Amino acid sequence: MRLAELSERSGVSTATIKYYLREGLLAPGRQVNATTADYDESQLRRLRLVRALIQVGRVPVATAREVLGHVDDESLGRTIRLGAALWALPQEPEPDDQDPAVRSARREVDQLLADLGWETARELAPLSPVHRSLVAAVATLIRLGYSWDAELLTPYAELMHQVAVRDLDHLETHTSDAERVETAVASAVLFEPVLRALHRLAQEQESARRYGIE
Amino acid sequence: MRLAELSERSGVSTATIKYYLREGLLAPGRQVNATTADYDESQLRRLRLVRALIQVGRVPVATAREVLGHVDDESLGRTIRLGAALWALPQEPEPDDQDPAVRSARREVDQLLADLGWETARELAPLSPVHRSLVAAVATLIRLGYSWDAELLTPYAELMHQVAVRDLDHLETHTSDAERVETAVASAVLFEPVLRALHRLAQEQESARRYGIE
Repeated sequence: MRLAELSERSGVSTATIKYYLREGLLAPGRQVNATTADYDESQLRRLRLVRALIQVGRVPVATAREVLGHVDDESLGRTIRLGAALWALPQEPEPDDQDPAVRSARREVDQLLADLGWETARELAPLSPVHRSLVAAVATLIRLGYSWDAELLTPYAELMHQVAVRDLDHLETHTSDAERVETAVASAVLFEPVLRALHRLAQEQESARRYGIE
Repeated sequence: MRLAELSERSGVSTATIKYYLREGLLAPGRQVNATTADYDESQLRRLRLVRALIQVGRVPVATAREVLGHVDDESLGRTIRLGAALWALPQEPEPDDQDPAVRSARREVDQLLADLGWETARELAPLSPVHRSLVAAVATLIRLGYSWDAELLTPYAELMHQVAVRDLDHLETHTSDAERVETAVASAVLFEPVLRALHRLAQEQESARRYGIE
């Protein structure tokens, strides 16, 4: 397809597509003649991903380039490729272990992973920004006097594991590895707000079921 | 307790506490003499909630005042009181029904609520910012070419309902209605990052279980 069609099907203006091409976020089309290039479905898919990262996820251009580098690196194993892309997304800062709330949180998260038998998550913990985010989030709860421990967190972790099983089942409906990794990255940005809204809607529904609406 | 102790136990500086008092986010202490006031446990709890909203949730002061007004309004029923507080938190903008992706999303969300039998959520839909957020989030997925429909969303909604059941069970461990409402509001701000991190960690773990780490 030509640039105009790529723009129409992706909802991204031609000026923005040209900017993404210049920034190396999108590979150049196949040159048909001096002024015309041809684009295929994989480029449309990539363009949607770039838009998800930049316009919806508010990821800076340099970070988006790094994420896409991991997405494209076929030398990496699938878990690392999925993880490496997610790891490059904006994360919370490193929690400060001088803070007693952080030390408590780290203890509770370690206990949680041990109780769940999540061995990989434990092995990856020193490297993983996801682990770091969890420690930081639990530390904030503890610091503000809301006491959360491994025992309270376990059932939530188990439910989120069921969510993750569905996520990966859904990814496996895609045929190519490239599509799977791209969809995983897009979902990390786009699907979080859906889950958050479903959670709040479910709270509303369950509250009404228990206490009625007066 | 005196101001100094309130500051130490809450981790909020005395200058910030004085600011919250001036802004009417915290009720004045009981005046002991011309220069000294006395604070109780309920004020410590309230101060933690104010900090959760403003410092962690980045809620503007005027919005925090509005949220706390709902929290304190005992004339409201419990579902409304929980909901009214959440409803005052920052929300996504109204989705634009001129946009075909928004119309598709609204159709799928309506179908989802019908399939789930969530009657209250359907009744509250025209008023609820939570419903609006869900429509907006699904519309973004659809607009970027990731086709999500009611059927795909249903199992996620059912899992988030199980999460909501746990949330409310946890709230019911608090004895007073004031504490329940305060905890619900604090959780809406503080617990979302925990859930998101648990979700990503579960994805990492499940991916490693399926595909290994090469």
